[in-house]
Amino acid sequence: MNTYDLIMKKRNGYPLEKEEIIYLVNGFTNGDIPDYQMAAFLMAVYFQGMNDEETTLLTIAMADSGDRLDLSGIKGIKVDKHSTGGVGDKTSLIVGPILASLGVPIAKMSGRGLGHTGGTIDKLEGIPGFRTTIPEEDFITQVNDIGLSIIGQTANLAPADKKIYALRDVTATVDNVSLIASSIMSKKLAAGADAIVLDVKVGTGAFMKTLEDARKLAETMVAIGSLAGKTTIAVITDMNEPLGNMVGNISEVQEAISCLRGEGEKRLMEVSETLAGYMVLAAGITSDPKEAKHMVDDAITSGKAFEKMKEFVSAQGGDAEVLEHPELFPKAKYVCTITGKDLLHARNQTANWREAYLESCDNQEIGMVSLILGGGRQTKDSVIDLTVGIHLYKHLGDRILEDDKVAELYGNDDKKIDEARRRFVYAYTLSQEPPALSPVVYEVITNKK
Amino acid sequence: MNTYDLIMKKRNGYPLEKEEIIYLVNGFTNGDIPDYQMAAFLMAVYFQGMNDEETTLLTIAMADSGDRLDLSGIKGIKVDKHSTGGVGDKTSLIVGPILASLGVPIAKMSGRGLGHTGGTIDKLEGIPGFRTTIPEEDFITQVNDIGLSIIGQTANLAPADKKIYALRDVTATVDNVSLIASSIMSKKLAAGADAIVLDVKVGTGAFMKTLEDARKLAETMVAIGSLAGKTTIAVITDMNEPLGNMVGNISEVQEAISCLRGEGEKRLMEVSETLAGYMVLAAGITSDPKEAKHMVDDAITSGKAFEKMKEFVSAQGGDAEVLEHPELFPKAKYVCTITGKDLLHARNQTANWREAYLESCDNQEIGMVSLILGGGRQTKDSVIDLTVGIHLYKHLGDRILEDDKVAELYGNDDKKIDEARRRFVYAYTLSQEPPALSPVVYEVITNKK
Repeated sequence: MNTYDLIMKKRNGYPLEKEEIIYLVNGFTNGDIPDYQMAAFLMAVYFQGMNDEETTLLTIAMADSGDRLDLSGIKGIKVDKHSTGGVGDKTSLIVGPILASLGVPIAKMSGRGLGHTGGTIDKLEGIPGFRTTIPEEDFITQVNDIGLSIIGQTANLAPADKKIYALRDVTATVDNVSLIASSIMSKKLAAGADAIVLDVKVGTGAFMKTLEDARKLAETMVAIGSLAGKTTIAVITDMNEPLGNMVGNISEVQEAISCLRGEGEKRLMEVSETLAGYMVLAAGITSDPKEAKHMVDDAITSGKAFEKMKEFVSAQGGDAEVLEHPELFPKAKYVCTITGKDLLHARNQTANWREAYLESCDNQEIGMVSLILGGGRQTKDSVIDLTVGIHLYKHLGDRILEDDKVAELYGNDDKKIDEARRRFVYAYTLSQEPPALSPVVYEVITNKK
Repeated sequence: MNTYDLIMKKRNGYPLEKEEIIYLVNGFTNGDIPDYQMAAFLMAVYFQGMNDEETTLLTIAMADSGDRLDLSGIKGIKVDKHSTGGVGDKTSLIVGPILASLGVPIAKMSGRGLGHTGGTIDKLEGIPGFRTTIPEEDFITQVNDIGLSIIGQTANLAPADKKIYALRDVTATVDNVSLIASSIMSKKLAAGADAIVLDVKVGTGAFMKTLEDARKLAETMVAIGSLAGKTTIAVITDMNEPLGNMVGNISEVQEAISCLRGEGEKRLMEVSETLAGYMVLAAGITSDPKEAKHMVDDAITSGKAFEKMKEFVSAQGGDAEVLEHPELFPKAKYVCTITGKDLLHARNQTANWREAYLESCDNQEIGMVSLILGGGRQTKDSVIDLTVGIHLYKHLGDRILEDDKVAELYGNDDKKIDEARRRFVYAYTLSQEPPALSPVVYEVITNKK
């Protein structure tokens, strides 16, 4: 077998065999196959695609390239949850405690934010004292004790994916559905859960801009799950504006706390409860969707989920006191208020309107506003400011008057706030008629019988 | 400008601008652009292609990446000749002396063989004492003195092409018409001639297997010539069997001598005389094709071309005596005769036939037979044996009887001869009816008015 022939085979549109895919993944990971051959191969995949079987073989080969987390020491069906990434997406902080309070063990490895999207690990680090790096034994013990632990990804989980992703990132070969799906699923398989619930975001703030693309990605990941023998449920949810009212690391933890206390924003709660419901079903503690929904509702209204959050934070060294008193979280120095007038004046076309509806949002741009304020990473090595963020008082479809407060920007640097403000006001379009709104949950693709 | 965006642009099917192509070629040549980005770009070109303007810009950027040969010190219109490579193709050794004897200066840089194809420089080194590396001033002086010099390519001619070709060779991005055409034409432009005659080979022993592909390559190279302001004539010729009777380095020099003495094999002479005729026209010493043909014929029958060959060989330090007495050339130790019976017995299907016609030839395989005997290079660093080769006594369409001598293999190693013999007899198919034969010269594509 040689790499040249495999590049040629894919270039000419033929599917690769299991041994061929393993040869490529292992050869590239251990350095036998040079970058330039892998780059040519990836570009050939961009054009010729991979079928579901190839995609699954690629996923498994990448999952097998490093350690696989052994969760066998945890009792019960372990359900993992993954989001393809968005703006203001703090659902992991909400569904984790809900599920754990219902007796479903959650042993989760999460990532950090990059570019316009946030990451759960950064958010958790906003809680004073919270440790995101703990030894694997302690992680397992904690899940057995209290039902929930969330830590950063250990170094050697799917190293092939890490190396291939880095190469895709500089060779314009990121946006291929097989490569995206296998990248996500390889890490999920290596992370050892029994069942996987995927939140596939679609819209201006998501990687997938159209429902068609999101559906294709969801279908591909569910197909991989099927071939890999894992219950996999993909929920396609809206990312045409930030999810919830808050964007920014500490701000999002605060909002998650509100949600667990039953005071969550409507759309955010709908996504969180939908995901939590499917996780309950995936865990098999009930097979009745209605009952699953009821259990999730009850976890919140009873206060059990919030209690679980406090237990979880304490277990990982965090100060649970701040959960009861969110005003104790560290704060940014400055607050910059954005009014309806600011948005109306952003474009000549709307400058003499007195009121308008929020028609559409360039949500990736909102993510960039958060990044500019200091809350996101331009590159993997950027240092982030956990206190900065955005509080949204209005959502798409809302009517805004000139004096309405639309948002607040939290920042520690005047210049950055100025730039963030300029970009924020331009990220929305306005209309005189109420716009049509996207659904919050579009559809669900599942292999669960 | 950044490389990532240019990969993406080509990947998405957009043509690149002049500055963008220059940025890529120069950046890759000087090492600023890494191999893996260039590999991804080349694969994107494989799928999306380049239009004639892009191809020409690429050609010129590669030609400009190193030295351009300055032939202004040579009087007259300098005509270069290039073959896309074949088996038994010794036409440069024939047309060079013909043209020089007609007063057309030939200042030619040639290459070495690789894989199944031969190279003029290797063949010339079969002449005892012949020097293929001489200083550039002496090269120019020699052309002014006797009208002909052929030397190996100097190191710094189109270094971008050299580096890009090496990368294409290991990333399955060789066979794209724009990349092939620009690679050939960049070297021709850098080599400084005023007009270029291209011999585009088509058939089982050529890079282009179909007339359609050969025509596309010919058209692309002529288009580049037009946009670069050079008279360019592409002659598409047959490579479905070796050209002439001899394959192998010294063997081919001996055959070229026979041709210059008026004893050439028919098809080889037709290709050589056609190319020489177009070179006469390109040089502008006549504009009448009939007169050009007459001049070429006369150069041979008068003995002037052969005299010019002797002058040329002497001028570069070679022993011109061997041209008069070809039996003085070094010889291989062993001769292995292949008979009609050997071919008939190679396949079960024909094993009980008593006679047959040579129906078709896997000509690349004949090139490989020569390589196996020791006459070709597996890699650039292989050492070759100039004495080995093949003498063909039969051609496609010939009838062969069991006892007919079909070919002789010349070798210095028993084991290699055995393997060469096994592969040779299997390279032909036989038929009971006379097969349809390919033309020798298919068509001519030119920008000459």
